[in-house]
Order: sequence, then structure tokens, then C-alpha cells
Amino acid sequence: MIKLRIGIIGVGGIAQGRHIPAFLQLRDICEITSLSDVNIDRAKEIAEKYNIPHIFADYRDLFSEVDAVCICTPNKFHAEITVAAFEAGVHVLCEKPMALSAKECEAMIAAAQKADKVLAIAYHYRFMKEAVAAKKAMDEVGTPLVVRVQALRRRKVPGWGVFTNKNLQGGGSLIDYGCHLLDLALWLMGNPKHIAVSGTMYNRLSKIPNQVNQWGSFDHESFNVDDHVTAYLKFENGASVLFETSWAANIKDDQEHLSISGVDGGLSVFPFELYMTKNGMLLNSEATWIPGEENPGLPQAKNFIDACLGLEELVVKPEEALQVSQIIDQIYENGGTTL
Amino acid sequence: MIKLRIGIIGVGGIAQGRHIPAFLQLRDICEITSLSDVNIDRAKEIAEKYNIPHIFADYRDLFSEVDAVCICTPNKFHAEITVAAFEAGVHVLCEKPMALSAKECEAMIAAAQKADKVLAIAYHYRFMKEAVAAKKAMDEVGTPLVVRVQALRRRKVPGWGVFTNKNLQGGGSLIDYGCHLLDLALWLMGNPKHIAVSGTMYNRLSKIPNQVNQWGSFDHESFNVDDHVTAYLKFENGASVLFETSWAANIKDDQEHLSISGVDGGLSVFPFELYMTKNGMLLNSEATWIPGEENPGLPQAKNFIDACLGLEELVVKPEEALQVSQIIDQIYENGGTTL
Amino acid sequence: MIKLRIGIIGVGGIAQGRHIPAFLQLRDICEITSLSDVNIDRAKEIAEKYNIPHIFADYRDLFSEVDAVCICTPNKFHAEITVAAFEAGVHVLCEKPMALSAKECEAMIAAAQKADKVLAIAYHYRFMKEAVAAKKAMDEVGTPLVVRVQALRRRKVPGWGVFTNKNLQGGGSLIDYGCHLLDLALWLMGNPKHIAVSGTMYNRLSKIPNQVNQWGSFDHESFNVDDHVTAYLKFENGASVLFETSWAANIKDDQEHLSISGVDGGLSVFPFELYMTKNGMLLNSEATWIPGEENPGLPQAKNFIDACLGLEELVVKPEEALQVSQIIDQIYENGGTTL
Amino acid sequence: MIKLRIGIIGVGGIAQGRHIPAFLQLRDICEITSLSDVNIDRAKEIAEKYNIPHIFADYRDLFSEVDAVCICTPNKFHAEITVAAFEAGVHVLCEKPMALSAKECEAMIAAAQKADKVLAIAYHYRFMKEAVAAKKAMDEVGTPLVVRVQALRRRKVPGWGVFTNKNLQGGGSLIDYGCHLLDLALWLMGNPKHIAVSGTMYNRLSKIPNQVNQWGSFDHESFNVDDHVTAYLKFENGASVLFETSWAANIKDDQEHLSISGVDGGLSVFPFELYMTKNGMLLNSEATWIPGEENPGLPQAKNFIDACLGLEELVVKPEEALQVSQIIDQIYENGGTTL
Amino acid sequence: MIKLRIGIIGVGGIAQGRHIPAFLQLRDICEITSLSDVNIDRAKEIAEKYNIPHIFADYRDLFSEVDAVCICTPNKFHAEITVAAFEAGVHVLCEKPMALSAKECEAMIAAAQKADKVLAIAYHYRFMKEAVAAKKAMDEVGTPLVVRVQALRRRKVPGWGVFTNKNLQGGGSLIDYGCHLLDLALWLMGNPKHIAVSGTMYNRLSKIPNQVNQWGSFDHESFNVDDHVTAYLKFENGASVLFETSWAANIKDDQEHLSISGVDGGLSVFPFELYMTKNGMLLNSEATWIPGEENPGLPQAKNFIDACLGLEELVVKPEEALQVSQIIDQIYENGGTTL
Amino acid sequence: MIKLRIGIIGVGGIAQGRHIPAFLQLRDICEITSLSDVNIDRAKEIAEKYNIPHIFADYRDLFSEVDAVCICTPNKFHAEITVAAFEAGVHVLCEKPMALSAKECEAMIAAAQKADKVLAIAYHYRFMKEAVAAKKAMDEVGTPLVVRVQALRRRKVPGWGVFTNKNLQGGGSLIDYGCHLLDLALWLMGNPKHIAVSGTMYNRLSKIPNQVNQWGSFDHESFNVDDHVTAYLKFENGASVLFETSWAANIKDDQEHLSISGVDGGLSVFPFELYMTKNGMLLNSEATWIPGEENPGLPQAKNFIDACLGLEELVVKPEEALQVSQIIDQIYENGGTTL
Repeated sequence: MIKLRIGIIGVGGIAQGRHIPAFLQLRDICEITSLSDVNIDRAKEIAEKYNIPHIFADYRDLFSEVDAVCICTPNKFHAEITVAAFEAGVHVLCEKPMALSAKECEAMIAAAQKADKVLAIAYHYRFMKEAVAAKKAMDEVGTPLVVRVQALRRRKVPGWGVFTNKNLQGGGSLIDYGCHLLDLALWLMGNPKHIAVSGTMYNRLSKIPNQVNQWGSFDHESFNVDDHVTAYLKFENGASVLFETSWAANIKDDQEHLSISGVDGGLSVFPFELYMTKNGMLLNSEATWIPGEENPGLPQAKNFIDACLGLEELVVKPEEALQVSQIIDQIYENGGTTL
Repeated sequence: MIKLRIGIIGVGGIAQGRHIPAFLQLRDICEITSLSDVNIDRAKEIAEKYNIPHIFADYRDLFSEVDAVCICTPNKFHAEITVAAFEAGVHVLCEKPMALSAKECEAMIAAAQKADKVLAIAYHYRFMKEAVAAKKAMDEVGTPLVVRVQALRRRKVPGWGVFTNKNLQGGGSLIDYGCHLLDLALWLMGNPKHIAVSGTMYNRLSKIPNQVNQWGSFDHESFNVDDHVTAYLKFENGASVLFETSWAANIKDDQEHLSISGVDGGLSVFPFELYMTKNGMLLNSEATWIPGEENPGLPQAKNFIDACLGLEELVVKPEEALQVSQIIDQIYENGGTTL
Repeated sequence: MIKLRIGIIGVGGIAQGRHIPAFLQLRDICEITSLSDVNIDRAKEIAEKYNIPHIFADYRDLFSEVDAVCICTPNKFHAEITVAAFEAGVHVLCEKPMALSAKECEAMIAAAQKADKVLAIAYHYRFMKEAVAAKKAMDEVGTPLVVRVQALRRRKVPGWGVFTNKNLQGGGSLIDYGCHLLDLALWLMGNPKHIAVSGTMYNRLSKIPNQVNQWGSFDHESFNVDDHVTAYLKFENGASVLFETSWAANIKDDQEHLSISGVDGGLSVFPFELYMTKNGMLLNSEATWIPGEENPGLPQAKNFIDACLGLEELVVKPEEALQVSQIIDQIYENGGTTL
Repeated sequence: MIKLRIGIIGVGGIAQGRHIPAFLQLRDICEITSLSDVNIDRAKEIAEKYNIPHIFADYRDLFSEVDAVCICTPNKFHAEITVAAFEAGVHVLCEKPMALSAKECEAMIAAAQKADKVLAIAYHYRFMKEAVAAKKAMDEVGTPLVVRVQALRRRKVPGWGVFTNKNLQGGGSLIDYGCHLLDLALWLMGNPKHIAVSGTMYNRLSKIPNQVNQWGSFDHESFNVDDHVTAYLKFENGASVLFETSWAANIKDDQEHLSISGVDGGLSVFPFELYMTKNGMLLNSEATWIPGEENPGLPQAKNFIDACLGLEELVVKPEEALQVSQIIDQIYENGGTTL
Repeated sequence: MIKLRIGIIGVGGIAQGRHIPAFLQLRDICEITSLSDVNIDRAKEIAEKYNIPHIFADYRDLFSEVDAVCICTPNKFHAEITVAAFEAGVHVLCEKPMALSAKECEAMIAAAQKADKVLAIAYHYRFMKEAVAAKKAMDEVGTPLVVRVQALRRRKVPGWGVFTNKNLQGGGSLIDYGCHLLDLALWLMGNPKHIAVSGTMYNRLSKIPNQVNQWGSFDHESFNVDDHVTAYLKFENGASVLFETSWAANIKDDQEHLSISGVDGGLSVFPFELYMTKNGMLLNSEATWIPGEENPGLPQAKNFIDACLGLEELVVKPEEALQVSQIIDQIYENGGTTL
Repeated sequence: MIKLRIGIIGVGGIAQGRHIPAFLQLRDICEITSLSDVNIDRAKEIAEKYNIPHIFADYRDLFSEVDAVCICTPNKFHAEITVAAFEAGVHVLCEKPMALSAKECEAMIAAAQKADKVLAIAYHYRFMKEAVAAKKAMDEVGTPLVVRVQALRRRKVPGWGVFTNKNLQGGGSLIDYGCHLLDLALWLMGNPKHIAVSGTMYNRLSKIPNQVNQWGSFDHESFNVDDHVTAYLKFENGASVLFETSWAANIKDDQEHLSISGVDGGLSVFPFELYMTKNGMLLNSEATWIPGEENPGLPQAKNFIDACLGLEELVVKPEEALQVSQIIDQIYENGGTTL
């Protein structure tokens, strides 16, 4: 059997921590043939560690050696590289967020369609065991009415890398972290059309000098992204979402919460729980064992490869990732200047 | 010392359970001289039980025997009776919500000002020990940024009385229950001006026949109020509120939650907790003992009487209760038809 | 509407604590017209307390004043009184156990059939909210395979009344306490035919002088009933029951446990829990609210009256109570001399 | 000092995981000189890993190089190899169960006696710290009356190896897993003579296609062993055992439970707890620290070697292991066809 | 049988709450015939409530009507009344502390000996179920080495009565509250001779205006007793006690702790726990049920009456209560001026 | 930048486990150039492992190669080596306790002053995150009144090394373990002058043969140090300390407790908690995150080097360590013969 040849573009933390290990574990169906990075020394080091034959400083030189690429660069370059890949006839698995703006996302989708290649976005939360269980359980929850999303860190601004650089990343806590749970909520709801978005951005805490921060230090003066966002979404089918995400908030403790109240029942994703009525009783259920992989990167990579090979339907469709970016756009615009 | 003569208008559950016992306990400074109720038999029974001299079928006949009235009728009659009381030169403590609409509230305020009498609204949550502690703690929380309000009951539609009657009550879970925590949130925030309100009303669950309900039964066909409401509020000072209230929702368990994340710290009201930073640490504090009365009706009655006597500032000012009604109006209108 | 006239025979603890209050609460459909007790003073006292018109020293004199009787005497007299009642044309609700032996039970059933009157046995555990919920949930549990029953008290031999008198009661922990959970287990299983019974009786602990006992004192020398019983039951449909009951055992703490492992799922009755598989997961559910009365004596009395009036099917059928007595007989005989 | 020369017959999981590491750790008193396995490649691999001089495909060739063997083959071969070992004058430590049937066990004992060599069976649960503590505590528990054994796994059929092969293993959950706790219970009771055995075998769940299973997959059609067994045992001294074991049952969670209620007190083995009376009180005790090895394989190997050297009494005597097999035989026969 | 005639001197809180109910419950063996109180109205009210025949303003007038008195006055009057009672030939149960000083105690003992009457001191903690259990368990604890006593209240200065009046009470937290646990510790240790006492008194917190206090308010300026005491005691047998008591301390929560580490084992009294070694294990035991009365006042009254009647040995001997007062004297003197 | 050259004297457990790793981690500012140990083979092995250039059998030969030494020998040699080091002009970080007696400590301080070099004592508990937090929080606690110290191990006599050798170590549980928490308490209190010390030493448990011990075995006959000490300290400022330390005591479980009740508030160090009053409430706070290193050896080494370089004030001053030794002296002397 022929294995899918894969190239990794940008070999920083996310490539090393999630994608490279996943593709290596799937060596029966794929092979990482190439790496590229603007930092050619880093590329060389990784290539040697994993015995990968080709490295390139310029990602354009990589396309000829691969069938598919996995894009792990700062957000700013997602769109440009994706379009170039499709022009080179190569499938794309692009890290989240899809791009800096919905407009860029649309261009990526158009390029994918023109090239007739696969475009997947790495919203890997969807491949978590709890998320897969929740998706199946939506049959019992029925039409979703109210969805609550909290992706909150008390004092964990990522002080390293480019996370607080608006030019490269397009934003802060929302576009980097909150986007995962927003995508997951939309997917569980069935990606209904959103009809209203209202939101507010904050970065008051991170603009204060010498704040307590558990994840390294950063320069409060140059900090120019959001560290806390609230939003409210309304959908065509009547559902509403109460949304909050943060890197730095005065709260009791970190929260990663997604719950849905539907017409027939309710659920929580983390931990997976069901809230039902049965025989006149109120019944709460919890999963004591869920099948599946602990590391969601593995089924994500498998789904991407299978989709490239035409064997399976893509789980994270680019049109769904576009909706996430549309909502982020509206929050960032609608919320106006950060407070 | 002369005692304030008090009349109770409407002697149903809230009068018997909260207001009459409170005024009786304050017998050093006041005296309940009169009751009125459209159900004169009920009035007679209560009057005998507590040895109250005068009863009336028509509230207009009561004003001459009292210095102040406490209005405990269905919401529909709040405005009319309040205005009549002021015309008769009598102080008013009116049950919540202030009235069916902001417009009615404004008329009540105008009448109070004209008569130069006290108008208090019975948002008694403000007199709870935890609420008083939270109000004091706002100094440490600093400017509020994000406020979360959940006044949620899983399956507890009040099946008795007039609670599901839109004509008499003006609405359901929001105007009856959620209004308390909305008022409390606004007060803790310092009643900043609201600049945007977005909301959604639901009654899908209560329209389903034979639903599980812990608080009696009701007719799902004639049910025409909201049983679940979500909303999002923005304020002039940049703060935002994520709000949810319900009588019937598919959730894990009932929730009465109000938390505030401010610039300097955070707090929860129920239970009272503080979330601070100190010497580089993250510090969580809980009150193991709070001074004050278990029953908030007592300090509420005391504050009303003292305000009537010019001894103390009113805690729940009518302009603040008006803001609650304005927001409820906008949610009910803005949210459009119930889903 | 005509009310069922009820007589109580034997007005000791169980009559005062459970049956009389229940019938009084159902005064819309029944009336306690008569009491009888060999202790006529006690009968007089109770009659005055509850304003009951007739009292009798001899139960035979009571039948003419009633439509139905509730028999609350020591076990030895259950059969004799029941047969006499049916001969007088009166319905019977008889306390558990049905009688001292299966043979007596059969005579009672024959008399009921001959008289065409209702014969109910007061296995009131069946009317507990958890038990009703479990009965409904058997659909999801599927064919029962293994049932575990533990009705265990560490050191609570009832030192009062006639509980340790073999002549009057027919046995000890099994016939007095364990019978409830045995009946409940059989009912939940659908009363399949039992094909093998093996058991062991013990009273070693209660024969030791000066044992620790939380429920009063008793004479260890004259103690001649079982204080601990184990048994194993096999059924025609392949199910098996592991059974244990005790008044006095060296165990960690008291246990009232009934769990069923079926082909499709499992359950526990106290507290009510379900153990299922769903979408490849292991799912545990607990009821956070079950509808119904806290006091099972009330629905038990209601069901008896309704059955007498031909309005409802009897829940505890005498043939089912007979099966309990058959199994108890076999354990007491099979287990041979107490050890 | 001369070291005992040891040979391992069958080098699969149990040999690699328990016995080889234990003998290696005891290198002061023994030496593994030889391995044999029908899979000679596997034997070679292990021999190289641990620097063991001799390997053999046929176990008969191994006897000349050793003083003692440890038999780790499928159950079917235990008896044959044991007898051959004794004929060669070699001591035997045989994995549990002792053999496929009591008859085979008797032949093994006869051979051991004829050869005057040690025959030990690897019921290693007896060497667990809690088990050793419980054995000592039986003095305080006094004569055992009731014993409860639960060796239950909710959904953990071992899908690998030969575990579901009746021909090679002789049975399923009982002979593989439940036998450990049965042996432990008998030992703690003092191995009294059993006078009655009643039991039931099930494999309904494992015959259902696509069942949830946490330990790999297996073919439900060819599955022909028990996955769940209940039993009841009576003993000459009046004690009774309520027994249950399973690989696949609809229960709340896995259970490994062994408790004993005796005349003077009670105990639980996992965790180790005592239930006593003292000065009129009910007293529960738990061990917060128990001396001994975490890995029971080490004291087991030590006891075997010491017994071979005549230094110590054997803990697991073959006559005791025979009793376990006798009871298993009777359950498998008595319980008839699996349901 | 003749009943002991009892008089109560001083009918305040402790008389009404503990002693009168206890004597009334023991009506088979005693009768309260008389009350005396300087507040004759209060005496009259109590006498009417309980149907007690005689009341007196002056306690001297009471002696002729009684066989025994129970002294419940402020501490200052304990000695004087006790001595007068003995001169009148009457037994005495005196509230704790025995008196204001050891010297007064010695005079009381001398008077008792001269009169040959019973003198008991109401250290009722000794009659608590846990205390009785601990006394019995000292056999297993062996020679006591280290004893830890904490009788601590965070903010509960008794604001009522005479508790903060040094003239009437002789001190504060130590003489009122800590004395109970000091007496209990000495009794459990076997009242060994103390050879050294070192201590410190504090009242810094109670001298601060407007302190938080859960038990009413008091005047910080006139407050002149200890609110916090630490001490260290050495005994002839080598044991030592680490002691602390308080009415007002900045601690986590209230503590009532008494633990003993002996040569053979250890124990805690509240809750009753044992810490032992057994078979090489560390074993912790807790009582899940202790026999006895919930209210220690009942066995205390019973023991006093039985001692008066010569039927039972007195539990709290006056010489033991004297030792408590000696130690308190030394702490109050040794600790010097309050800080 | 020039690095401080460091020599390690005595390369046993504490050197290998704490000091060598810390200095290696600080390689930017220091270099371990030399080791010395009476066991030259051990020194050689460590030197090779960490690539350290010089080793010496006699510590006197080491001084010429270093700027500072870290003394890790048995306690007996601390004073002698320290004085020699200062005579050689070398800074000293000496393990705790400072020396065998206060007199030796004074000589060490005199030598340091004469040489004008740094003398630090390795009371590393002061560098724990909780301790640093507590030191800062003393501002809120205010003047300390009562301090409670418990450094208790139930059965953990260190059976290895020289721990039970009085000649080499000077004592047992107090000088080895309790000294840490005594030093920490004194430091948090601000090292006020002590005016009275009373104490008791025990070794009853360790003199009993075959005691349960979790940390190896030891010879009960030659055991001649304390295994348990209680003490009480009074200070010039009115504060008092209740102190207890043990290696072997009959207690519930190990305890490492230090709490302080001050005039304004209270605190616990392990875990770090604050007990305050605020707005009339009682408020308990816990740190959910404290900044700093997990390993206190690192900031300890850093502080020593910085002090040697004149960059930072020494945290553990020798005069403070002297006070610890003075108190230990007085307890050992004052307590008299061990009991």
C-alpha cells in the first residue's frame, strides 16, 4: 500500500508536541518526508531526531516532496501557505484558528475547491473522547436551547512565543484558546446559522505592571491583545450561547466548561455527564469509561489521512471552521476597542 | 415614641411568610393596624390570628388608618395601588418586580416625588448576609468587568397561584425569580448605565405535556410565560453581564450563582468567597461566619421604617428598581416571541 | 361517595406508626370505624386519641362494623384471623410475613378466593419511591441474572415486644426483617419459579451473654430465633440470588442493599442507581429526584382500598407473598438446626 | 552456600511479569539456569535479556539442569508437566489453578509424595500484605460464620492469549480469577471441610455481539467459558460463603471484596479493616501501614525456595489448592449448562 | 424507698439547663424540694414551672428542707455556701470551678470531712460517653507520656451574665472553660502529682474595641479576665501536658481536642479514636457507637445521688478538683500580669 | 564574571541530595571545584559523576582551592571545620544544627566576625514557598501571641547513618528534625528574646525491643537519644510557643504543623492559610498558587552565594541559628534525664 507523504511547515511547539508524534504513530499509512521552518537549525535538529529525509527553509520548496502538508506557523501565515499548497496540488491540515479573518478563510476554501484537495482545520478538541461521546448524545439532548461555554484561565497568559503579538496572531485569548470551545459548541449544536453576535473584549489585567502570572512573564506595555472576552450568540433555530474565555481573570479557578440544555435533556462535556428525565424522575448520568484514544491528535491525523485517501468523511470541515472565524471577527469588531 | 402605622395590601403567601412576621417582630417601632384583600375572608382570618384591628375589601379604604403600606398583590396592581397610596399621603413598600413595565415604574416614581414620600421595592436579596458582605467587598474587587448570573431551577415551575398567568404577572421566570439576582448584580456593580441588552426567551419545556415538575402541576396549553431566559448586558463603563434564569431547564441541578471578576479581585455571593492576589500568590477566601439576620425580611422592614422616619437612607431606591424593569422590558421585547 | 369502613386488629407499634395514620390521611375514601386488641385499655386509649367509635376485645366482634380489616397482631395469629375475616365477608390487609408457614398462607388464599374478597400483604417496601422506580427500570435491566440482597444490622436485636419469641413470630431476623427485601427482590425479578434453596441460620452472637446491642436488651438464654441467615436461591429462568439478613453480625455497618445484574443493564434500589452501556461507554446514573410519597404506608393503604373498591389492581398479591413464605420455610428447614 | 537451580517452563506473561523478576531478585539463594517454551524464539529472547544459560523447546530436556521448576503454561499442561517433574526428581511451583480438575490435582499430589519433593501452587494473593494481616487477625475474628467473596470486573474479559479457550484453560472467570479469592477465603477460614456447593454459571453477556469491553476484543461466537459465576458453600463447622466472580457484569464498578463475620469480630481484607466490640462500643479499625513487600511474587518465591531447602513450611499446600479445584469442579458440574 | 431531697441554690442558666432537668428525670430516687436565689422572682417562676414546693431568698433557710444541695451560683460564692451546707449536715454538688482558689477548695474539703458528707464538683465532661470510653481505654494506652489539650473558641466571648467579671468569677477562659478539659486530662492520666507549671495569660484581643464576637457584645474597657491561656505542665511520672484554652483567638476554627500518647498506644477523646500497633501494623480505630446517655448531666446527677446514698463511688472527687484549682492558681500567678 | 569556587566537605546524603544539585544548577555564578570526605572512595565516585576536579581526604587541604565551603558532616564536626575555614579565609554554609552546643556556635560566630566572612546555616525550611509567604503575611498577623509547633513522625526513627548516635549528633528528634520548625517559628516571630524554656525528653518507645518502625531498624539497647520532646517557650514580648517533635509517638498520623495566632490575625504555614476578620466577618484564606521553587535548596544556595558576593542580605543569620541552639541546650539540660 502506498503511504501518504506528509510535510510539516513550522516545527515549533505544536508540531513537535502533537502532529509529528501522531503521524509517526500512523506509520502504516503515512510518512513524514519533509520539514520546513524559517529557523533552518531547528528544522535540522528535528529532522535528525526523527530521521526525516528533507528539510527546507522556504516552505515553497517542500511541496514537491509531499502529498499533504500540516501547517503549524503563526496564524498570520495560515492563509498564504494554504493557498500556495493548493496551487501546488497538496492537501492541507492547518492549525487553528483557520486564519486571521473570515475573509482569508473564504479564500482558503475557494483554493481548496479549485484544487479539489482536502482542507482540514486542527480543532482537535472535537476528537477528545468526551467530545465524541457528547456528539453522539445530542440525539438524547434534542434541539439545543441554551449553551454555556467557559474557557477560563485565572492567571496563565502564555508569556513565551508569539502569543501576545497581535500582528502575528490576530488576537489573544479568544483566537488562541476560546476558539476551541466555540468550535466544539457549534459542532455539537449542528452548526446552525448565527443571527446575532454581541461581545466585549478586555485586557485591563494584563496592562497592569507586575501582575501575578503562572505561565512566564510578558511586557504589559506592549501587550495589545485580549486577555478576557465575553459574548452572546443567537441562532436561527432560537438557540443562544453564553460565552466566556480568558487568559487572566479574577476567578476562583480555571474552568473548561461546555454544557447544553436541550428540549429533551442536557449534557456537560468535561466531564461527560447527561441530565435526563425518565419515568418521572430526574436522572443524572456520568460515564465511568469512554472508549477511544487519550491523545486527540491521533484520531485527528487519522481522519485527515483517511479523508485525503477518500476513505472517510472529514470531521472538521472548513466551512465549520469559517463560521468560528466569522463569529470571532464579529466579536473583535463588535466589541470595539479593548477596555 | 410614636410607632409607624402600617397597612398590608394583599395577604397571600408573601405577606404571611415575609412581611407580616417582620413588622410584628419590629413592634417597638411600628404597628400593623390594617389589612386589605379582595378575599375578605382571608383578610379576616389573618387579622384574627395576629390581632390586627382593621380589615378592608377595598384597599382605598385602608389609607386613612396607616402611615405606610406594604403592597403584596399580583404584579399587575403594583403601579395603580402605589400611585393611589401616594395620593393619600402614605409611604409605600412594594413587592418586586416594581411593576409590569418601566413606564409604570416611572409613574410610581413621579407620584412618590410629588407626594414626597418613601417608595421602596422589596428586592430582599440585597438584605441577605452574603449580599451585604459582597457589597462591602466591592472595594477590593475594584471596577467590575465581567458578571455571571445564574438563577436556575431544573424543574420547579410554581404550579400554584398566579405565577403562570401573563396577564397578572407580566411574565414568568425572569420577572418573578431572575429579577432578584439581576437587581443584586446591578447594585453590586453600582448601577452603571446599561448601553445594550440582548436576550432570548424560552418556554419549550413547559409547553410539553406531562413534564416532570417538582412544584405542583400546571396546564401546559395555557402556559404563556417564559420558563427560561438568557441575556447579555453591556454597560457604559465597559462591564458585561452573562445572565440566565429558569424555572424549567435540563441542567445538572439548581443554581443560584452570582460572581464578579473585577480589576483588583473577584467574588462569589452564594457562598460568599473572595478571589484575590497577594504577595504574588493567588488567594481564595471564604467567610466562616457573617454577622446579621438569617431572615432578610427583617432588615428590609427595618430599613423601610427608618427611611420613612428619616433616620436612614433607603437601600433599594426606586430608580434602581426601575433599571431592573427597563432591562426586563428590553429582554421581553428584544427577545421577541417565545420559542 | 361511600367510604370503606376499616377495622384495625391489634393496635401496637405497627398499627399506630404506619396503618392508622395512613387510613386517617385517606379520610376522603375510608373511615376507621373499629379497633380491637386483647389489651382493651390500649385499644381504648387509641380510640379516644383518634375519635374512633368502636372498640372490641375480641376481633370476631369487630367484623360486623367494617368492610375491611388491617391485621397487626403477632405473626402467629395472621392466618386464623384472616380466615375468620373472609368467613365474615370482610377484605383483609395483613401485616408481613403473611403467616408462620406456607401451608397457612395457602389456607388464607383459599379462604379469600372462596369469599371473593381482597387479600393484601403489607410488604410496604414495594411502595417506596426507589422500589417503584426500580420496578419500572427493569425494562432496561433486561432478564435478571444475579441478584444480591443484604438486609443487615450490626447490633440491633429488637429487645422489646415479641420479636425474639419463636412461638409467636415463627423466627427472627429472616421472617421479621429479611422477608421485606426478599419479597422486593422476587417482585423486581417478576416472581420467577424458584427451583433450589440453600441456606444457613445462625444465632451464635445472641447466645453470648452481655453482647453489645443498640436496641435494648434481651435474655440470651431464652433467645431461640435466628439472628443471621445466609441463603442462595436458583430460579427456573437461570437467575440466582445471593441473600443475607441479620439483626446481629460483626460487620462494618448496617446495610440495606438490593442490586440486580441483568442481561442489558444493572441497578441498585437503595439508593436508586442504574448501570448501563451506551454508545460504547459505561454509564452510571443516579436519580436526583423521584416523585412519590416519603411514607410508603400511604400508597399501600390507597392501593388496598382501591383494590377493595375494584378500581385498581393489587400490588402485593397473596400468591407472591406465599412464595416468600415458601422460601423462608425452606431456609428454616433446609438450614437445619441453628448454629 | 549452594543456590537452588530453577527452570521456568512457559515464558509468557505470568513468567515474565511475576516469577522471573522474583527469582532474579532472590539471587542470593537461587539461580534461573533454564527456560523452556514451545515457542523457542520467545525463550531465546528472554534468555538473552536476563543472561540465562540454557533454553529448551521440550520441557523434558530441562529437568537435568535444575533443582526446581516453575510451571507457567496454559492450565491444561499443569498436571502432565508436574508429574513429569516429580519423576525427574525436581521440586515444582505450579501456577494457579492447580489443574483442570480435582482428579488431576490428586495425581499431582501423589507424584509429589512419591518423589518426596515440594509441590507449591502460585495462589499469590495469600502473600499480599493485607492477606497476611488478615490471617493473623483471624484470632480476633474467632470462628468464622459468614464469608462474602466478590471478585468482579464490570467489562474486562481478557481478550488476548488463551483466556477464553475452554479446552486449554478449563473455564473462564471462575478458574482464572475467582479461584484466587476462593483460595484466600478458604485459607483464612482454616480450610474447613465443605459439605455443600451450589452454583450457577453465566456467559450471556459475552455471547452478545459487540459488547463493550475494556480489555481488548474477542469472538463472541466461539466464546465458550463462564464470564460470571455465583455460588454458595456450606462447611462442616457451620460456616457459609456467598461467592461471586465475573469478567463481565452489569454492576456499578469492579469489586475485589472478601469479608468475614466471625463469632468475636469481623474483618475485610481489601482494604484491611477490623470490626470489633470493646468496652461496650462498636469499634472499626483500619491499618494505616502494613509491613511487607508490595509485590507478593517475592515472598511467594522466597517461601517456595525455603520450603525446597527445608527451612520453612510451605504456605500454599497442595491439599489446600486441591480443595479449591474440588469446589470449582462442583460449581462447573453442579451449575450445569451455562445460561 | 426514701428519695433524696434536693435543693438548688442559684437558678440561672446552668441550673435550668442541666441540673434541674437531670434531677427531675431521676424522680425515682430523688425530689427537688427547694430552690433559692437572690432573685426571688426568678426562683418563684422556676418553682411554679416545675411544681417545686419551697423557695428561699437566702440559701441558709433552705438547708432544713433538703438532704443535698446543688450550688449553681457565681464562682465567688461556691466556698462559702459549701461550707455552710456542710455545717448544716447537707451533701453538696458544687458547680465547677470548685472555688476561686485552691485555698478555698481546701477549706471545702475540710468541712466535708468534718461533716462526713459527700462533696462532688460538676466537671460534667467526665460523664460524656467519649470520656468514659477514653478512661476505659487508658489500659491500652499505657503510661501516658504526652497530653495535648485544646479548648479553643475563635470569637465566642460570652457577652452575657457575669462571665467577664473577675471579682465574681475569678478569671475568664481558663477558669470557666479550659478547666473542664484540664480536669478531664488529669483524670485520664490518673491524677499524677504535678511538679512544674508554666503558663501565659492573654486578653489582647478582647481589649480591642469593636472586635468581632459571635456570642453577644461586652465592654472592652472593663474586660479584665483572660481570653486566652497557654500552659505547660510536668508531672512526677515524667508526663507532660501542652495546654491551650481561649474564648477569642485568631485560629482556623473552634477546637475541643484532647489526645494522649502513651507508651503502648494513643487516643483522642473527641471524637473517640485509638492509635495502636498490632502484628507489626499501625492501626487506627474509631468508635461507630458508644453506649450511654447523650446528656452527661444525667449520669452526673445519678452518681452524686448514689454516692450520697452510699451505693457508688464518687466519680469526681474533691481532691481531684482541688488539683485543677491548684494548677489554675499557678497559671494565674505564674503567668503574671495579663498581656 | 568571576564564579564563586565552592568546596563540599562531607559528601553523604544531604550533600548529594540537596547541596551539590543546587550549586550545579547555579553554574552561572558558582563552580564546585573540590570535595572532601573521610571516605575518599565516596568522594572519588561523586567527583567523577559530576566532573569535579579536586578531591581530598582531609578537609584542611581543600581550603586553598575554594572561596566558600558547604559543611555536610555529622554535627560533631560542624564547629571545628567552620572555625578552620574562617581561619583559612573561606565563607561557610554549614548544615543544621549549627553545632552541638550554643557555646560552639558562639565560637563559630566569633571566628566569622574575625575573618569577616559569611556564615550561613542551612535551615532550608525558611526557603520553602509556604514559609516565604508566611513571613510576608506576618504584617497582617500582627504581634504574635501564641505559636504552635508540631514536627511529629509516628514511627519513623531513621535507622540508617549516625542519626541515633548521641556522640556524633548530640541528640535525636529535636536536634535533627524539630530544630527546623523551631527555627522557622522563631524567624516568623521576629526572633524575640526567649525568657523561659521548659521541656521534657522521651525515648521510652525506642527502648522497647521490636517496635514497629517504617524507616529501617535500629538497636533499641544502644539507642541513647531523644525520640520525642515537648517544650514550652516564653518570650520577652509576651508570646509563648507550644512545641512538640518526635520520631516515634503513638499518634494518629505524621504532623508538620506551625500556626501563629497574632493580635490582628492568624496563619498556618503548611498548608499556607490565613485566618482574619474583615467587615465583621470571620474569613479564612488559602493560597491556591504560590510563586517560587519547589526545591528550597536552590534559593538557599543562591542566597548564600549572593551574600558571599555582597549582593544580598543573608536570610539565615548565625545569631538566629544560635538562638535555636540555645533553646535546644536548655531543653536538653532542663528536661533532665530522658524518661
